[in-house]
Amino acid sequence: MALGRRFITSAALVALATASVGSGAVAQSGDPKAIEKSFDAQINNADLVAWLKEMSSAPNHVGAPHNKANAEMQLALFKQWGWDARIETFDVLYPTPISTRLEIVGANPVALGGQEAAIGADPDTAKLADALPPYVAYQGDGDVTGSVVYVNYGMPEDYEALERRGISVKGKIVMARYGGGWRGLKPKLAQEHGAIGCLIYSDPADDGYGAYDVYPRGGGRPETGVQRGSVVDMTIYPGDPLTPGIGSTPGAKRLTREESPVLLKIPTLPISYGDAAKIMARLEGPVAGGAARGGMAMTYHWGGTDAVKLHLAVKSDWSQKPIYNVIAVMPGKTRPDEWIVRGNHRDAWVYGASDPLSGQVALMAEAKALGALAKAGWRPDRTLVYASWDGEEPGLLGSTEWAETHADELKAKAVMYINTDVVGRGFFRGDGSHVFQHFVNQVSRDVPDPQTGVSLYDRSRASIRNGGRGVSPEAVAAAKAGADLPIAPLGSGSDFAAFLEHLGVPALNVGFGGEGQAAGAYHSAYDSFHHVMSFDDPGLVYATTLSKVVGRMILRASSGSRPPARYGDFASTVSRYVVEVKKLAADQRESDRALLDQLRDNVFALSSHPDDPMKPPVAKEMTPLIDMLALEDAADRLSRSAKAADAALDRAPAASPAAQAAVEKALKGIDQVLADPRGLPGRPWYRNLIYAPGTLTGYGAKTLPGVREAIEQRRFADARTYVARTAAVLNAYADRLDTAVKALKP
Amino acid sequence: MALGRRFITSAALVALATASVGSGAVAQSGDPKAIEKSFDAQINNADLVAWLKEMSSAPNHVGAPHNKANAEMQLALFKQWGWDARIETFDVLYPTPISTRLEIVGANPVALGGQEAAIGADPDTAKLADALPPYVAYQGDGDVTGSVVYVNYGMPEDYEALERRGISVKGKIVMARYGGGWRGLKPKLAQEHGAIGCLIYSDPADDGYGAYDVYPRGGGRPETGVQRGSVVDMTIYPGDPLTPGIGSTPGAKRLTREESPVLLKIPTLPISYGDAAKIMARLEGPVAGGAARGGMAMTYHWGGTDAVKLHLAVKSDWSQKPIYNVIAVMPGKTRPDEWIVRGNHRDAWVYGASDPLSGQVALMAEAKALGALAKAGWRPDRTLVYASWDGEEPGLLGSTEWAETHADELKAKAVMYINTDVVGRGFFRGDGSHVFQHFVNQVSRDVPDPQTGVSLYDRSRASIRNGGRGVSPEAVAAAKAGADLPIAPLGSGSDFAAFLEHLGVPALNVGFGGEGQAAGAYHSAYDSFHHVMSFDDPGLVYATTLSKVVGRMILRASSGSRPPARYGDFASTVSRYVVEVKKLAADQRESDRALLDQLRDNVFALSSHPDDPMKPPVAKEMTPLIDMLALEDAADRLSRSAKAADAALDRAPAASPAAQAAVEKALKGIDQVLADPRGLPGRPWYRNLIYAPGTLTGYGAKTLPGVREAIEQRRFADARTYVARTAAVLNAYADRLDTAVKALKP
Repeated sequence: MALGRRFITSAALVALATASVGSGAVAQSGDPKAIEKSFDAQINNADLVAWLKEMSSAPNHVGAPHNKANAEMQLALFKQWGWDARIETFDVLYPTPISTRLEIVGANPVALGGQEAAIGADPDTAKLADALPPYVAYQGDGDVTGSVVYVNYGMPEDYEALERRGISVKGKIVMARYGGGWRGLKPKLAQEHGAIGCLIYSDPADDGYGAYDVYPRGGGRPETGVQRGSVVDMTIYPGDPLTPGIGSTPGAKRLTREESPVLLKIPTLPISYGDAAKIMARLEGPVAGGAARGGMAMTYHWGGTDAVKLHLAVKSDWSQKPIYNVIAVMPGKTRPDEWIVRGNHRDAWVYGASDPLSGQVALMAEAKALGALAKAGWRPDRTLVYASWDGEEPGLLGSTEWAETHADELKAKAVMYINTDVVGRGFFRGDGSHVFQHFVNQVSRDVPDPQTGVSLYDRSRASIRNGGRGVSPEAVAAAKAGADLPIAPLGSGSDFAAFLEHLGVPALNVGFGGEGQAAGAYHSAYDSFHHVMSFDDPGLVYATTLSKVVGRMILRASSGSRPPARYGDFASTVSRYVVEVKKLAADQRESDRALLDQLRDNVFALSSHPDDPMKPPVAKEMTPLIDMLALEDAADRLSRSAKAADAALDRAPAASPAAQAAVEKALKGIDQVLADPRGLPGRPWYRNLIYAPGTLTGYGAKTLPGVREAIEQRRFADARTYVARTAAVLNAYADRLDTAVKALKP
Repeated sequence: MALGRRFITSAALVALATASVGSGAVAQSGDPKAIEKSFDAQINNADLVAWLKEMSSAPNHVGAPHNKANAEMQLALFKQWGWDARIETFDVLYPTPISTRLEIVGANPVALGGQEAAIGADPDTAKLADALPPYVAYQGDGDVTGSVVYVNYGMPEDYEALERRGISVKGKIVMARYGGGWRGLKPKLAQEHGAIGCLIYSDPADDGYGAYDVYPRGGGRPETGVQRGSVVDMTIYPGDPLTPGIGSTPGAKRLTREESPVLLKIPTLPISYGDAAKIMARLEGPVAGGAARGGMAMTYHWGGTDAVKLHLAVKSDWSQKPIYNVIAVMPGKTRPDEWIVRGNHRDAWVYGASDPLSGQVALMAEAKALGALAKAGWRPDRTLVYASWDGEEPGLLGSTEWAETHADELKAKAVMYINTDVVGRGFFRGDGSHVFQHFVNQVSRDVPDPQTGVSLYDRSRASIRNGGRGVSPEAVAAAKAGADLPIAPLGSGSDFAAFLEHLGVPALNVGFGGEGQAAGAYHSAYDSFHHVMSFDDPGLVYATTLSKVVGRMILRASSGSRPPARYGDFASTVSRYVVEVKKLAADQRESDRALLDQLRDNVFALSSHPDDPMKPPVAKEMTPLIDMLALEDAADRLSRSAKAADAALDRAPAASPAAQAAVEKALKGIDQVLADPRGLPGRPWYRNLIYAPGTLTGYGAKTLPGVREAIEQRRFADARTYVARTAAVLNAYADRLDTAVKALKP
């Protein structure tokens, strides 16, 4: 990597050091509570509202003039606040639609698709001339005509059910509804099953009138609303499809489009339920009932006959486009080579007031407040790197290319990455690396919820005890006991991926949600300032609170002798995951056996419904007994080592400088040992053997992915290989902890 | 009770004895298998189809000329087939609508309600001039105007949720959807909460386009379809509302309408979802989401504001109306004073092709075949009593008045009651008294399923193993093992109630279902011959099979030295119920405690949603520890006694005549000891302490109801009283078994 790409120059360090000279008793005092109070006082809700209004006032997709203008505005602001800021540009493959066309063909053709409709109450929706039409990025251009099969969510079990009904999608256009798995899996699986095109629609049961009042009465998706998005296969790798694993810098070696394994081949469009209803109403075939139907006012059918044919054509401009990351640095006073990286993306599909700007303005408020503290004489021990990412929507482009470009420096210096994205009103979440579970809980106990006045922790705790979201038995037990609430593992879907899963840098994704209605405008032209202020986070009170949460995290993580890790939380979580994968294998074996028994006894033929006859499922090879002793042993050892390390580290401040140096050396980058350079089966870019997005969930996490997915996908040889590899990284982790403990022996 | 009401006269016995003289080697042979084969040969599918077509050709509600004509036709047929038949008439309170009116009031009034629309493909639906308009029988006449509250299913938990939202139904008209509990509970609970009127609509999610293709493309309820029904409070008692517990004979003492505890006070109408949508679209207030919404294409709201007002007026003719039970008798050869009673109702809401005529024609086919066997020389050991009940729909009137009128004779003679009602294609069910569990399973193993050719048992078994309906862990275990499948307990909703629950006569309710679409036409004008033949039981192949099933039950139960009871099945089922009620009490206590903890910790206020704020639930008195030892002891003793009795009875044929007589005496009417003359709390008509309809389920069974409902409804003193009473009847049952065992001691 060329020195030129090393993004913090000595000159910058000097510049900021100069800028940070100032006064302020509190900021210089070093009293953490006082500094946090002073930080809070700098967070100004009116700033967030003003920035959001301005930044969401025109389309912000990659390449949109307003997106670049926002970057330039941010650059100026960061500088004004005393940060060393720059715009770092990458040229990436990013297709934009030249034309999209969808129609029901026949004697009386019906034109479908096109731009979303203006809504009177929302002035922004009348200014869509500069917006891209609804489309999905990285679909395969094409011009096809064919009959239609409704595939429900378009996930593997849906295809299995279709196959049992004797319905093939081969040579046909599938219509899937959003939900049940990541968007990009739908056309991918359709293509794998021989479909020639794919439509994805937003069912009103999920984010329309079935969920909320419809916009503008409420935030729910109106019948003209369309969810745009990316369908690049980021389960293989995110970032520029042509430069996997390396930064998309001018001299980089690029794949051709044909060589890239993450690009689709079939044309795909997202559509509204207004359009989907016109197609569904014409479908024949057996009834798609029960969990396979949504909320449109008609009986759903699987189709597959020639009752309705569609013409679908998409043509894109596949040229390289520039993306603009704004990077702002505040160098650390005592540990400048330890970085706390904090990011939120800036690009949107249209206006993006909620996604991503609600999180972006929180980041800006933090940066302004930190700048003010710095001007008053405070300085972080560690270096802060604030990033406004571009190109997240098409495929985490900005963060991935940046992380790949600066990989060596990040591996050497990055202590943690803190991400935010959409913020909606509701309950606090801090998900990610379990070494930070206690840290997340501590911060959430110290910030009040703007709605109730109790701490974020107490509100989450009440929600869990009232049967709220994410209620696992562990969460209920912790909530009852008043103990740390478990945090969730990260998969993908935002800019933490390259840090956590490619480099092994431990990461958090922080936010609020559960009480807003942003889902109804998600990735549509209705994700506007009016929508956010009316339904998603009225008054931006939760975005403002997020600034205080992340600000505290930054203040705490950037000071002190070591990062805020508690290894026992990681170890106990890993132990739970090991129990889960063992149970997974045992349950799968049991259900394989049950299926064989059912097939032997003709259970499926005898209970088949005459109106909806289904062939028996295909018999599966029995899941073998898989030796997981190495993994169990490693988890057990890790638990003991982590417990010892946590106890020893509490005593560390009293240790000799030499011992402390040895401890620091042992623990420096410890989480990176979880990244195996060989990566996961079939997707070597994903190196973290503890956390990964599921190949069949997309955003959703799979923990111990090498083992878990191998069992689920019946790659039993892989399962055995990854039992060993996962055990090895856990043992390497325990080795590091043991070294630290040894250094601290009295 | 006057001798004149004793319904089998000696003259009749003589007449039938004469009629049964005939020939036929098989019929006279006494070989059960050969007789059953001969019986099957007499079942003629074309008969069922022709009868169904004729009998469903005009409206068949109580009082309709065609209902009476059908009774007279049946009378003639029974006589022609050699049965001693008569029509037994009762005069009962049965209101018919004089006028029904529903409209949205205001500047632009919208008229709602009225008769259902004709559907071109179904000629019967064009002949609705003589049909009653959609209404619910026994609602309270009135003329009210008020605003509207949507109450979801209108069950207690719905009112609790409304109250937590601060929405009152006092002085308002409620709109409930069908489902979640019996129809009649909806206006009853509305009235108890202060509502002035009630509407009940059929949500398309439940039996319209959400379930099936809509009629006539499929059998689903069209947007003009309305479910009629009764709202008399049959959870207190069924039958004529003015003559509880006694036959509604000319001289009977009658309550006034004001005195009757089962009549509603508020006007109530059933409506279509076409009408419900017009109301729902105008409602304001918080969103009714999640499980509270159905399938109409809009956001649901709870209402309660003045945004929409309705005018609802119902006026009825409350005169007495005659009902006509057709009763046909075939006297037993050796045990004429032991009766097997078999019934199905004949009255409908409109045409009633499915409900009840699909079952009625099966009954007729059995009677014809039995008549033919009798003419060929066969005779049952026991007396057969076949009944075509009238007035079931308004409140089990025909069967209840008949059973109450002949109570003494039935208590002395009735061995069992076998009921049928709607038959749809699908899976066999025989539910009811668990002493007959083995009997039901035996028969189901001997009759082939018309669709697959395997036995009904094998098809049910496959369905259970494929995750079909009614899948309890017990059922799955039995299905896997090839053992007897558990039968379900009976609640109410058809004509078995008076026999089983008032008199204690053990009963079965037998049928097929699960693959037809009769639910979409249930209690509407679309329940027609065309609907049945197209969607519910095409070709009447399952109705025809039902004749073979029930015919076998009749042939087997009417011959031999004792009824087909196996006491161990009853005992083990009771033991299971005892475990259930113990768990119910323990779980309720635990959740009471959890609620108190949640209230103490302010969990509800802290997790309340800003768009839908809810008050905390009201604290409940802790469920006390309830001493159930007497019940456990009785169940334990019953298990031992039953096991001993089953074993001893297998040896009975070798015993002395004196011993056999002692056994018969001990077991005669044994199931009637389960009926406590004091009845259940608040509803003394229901005497059976093992089986009852739930006061808050309506049709659904509650077993050990005196104890179970007392716990659920927090009447803990009642729970203790009924632990003792239920234990007492179980001990009395065990006493009888012990006496039989003793008589058979070698």
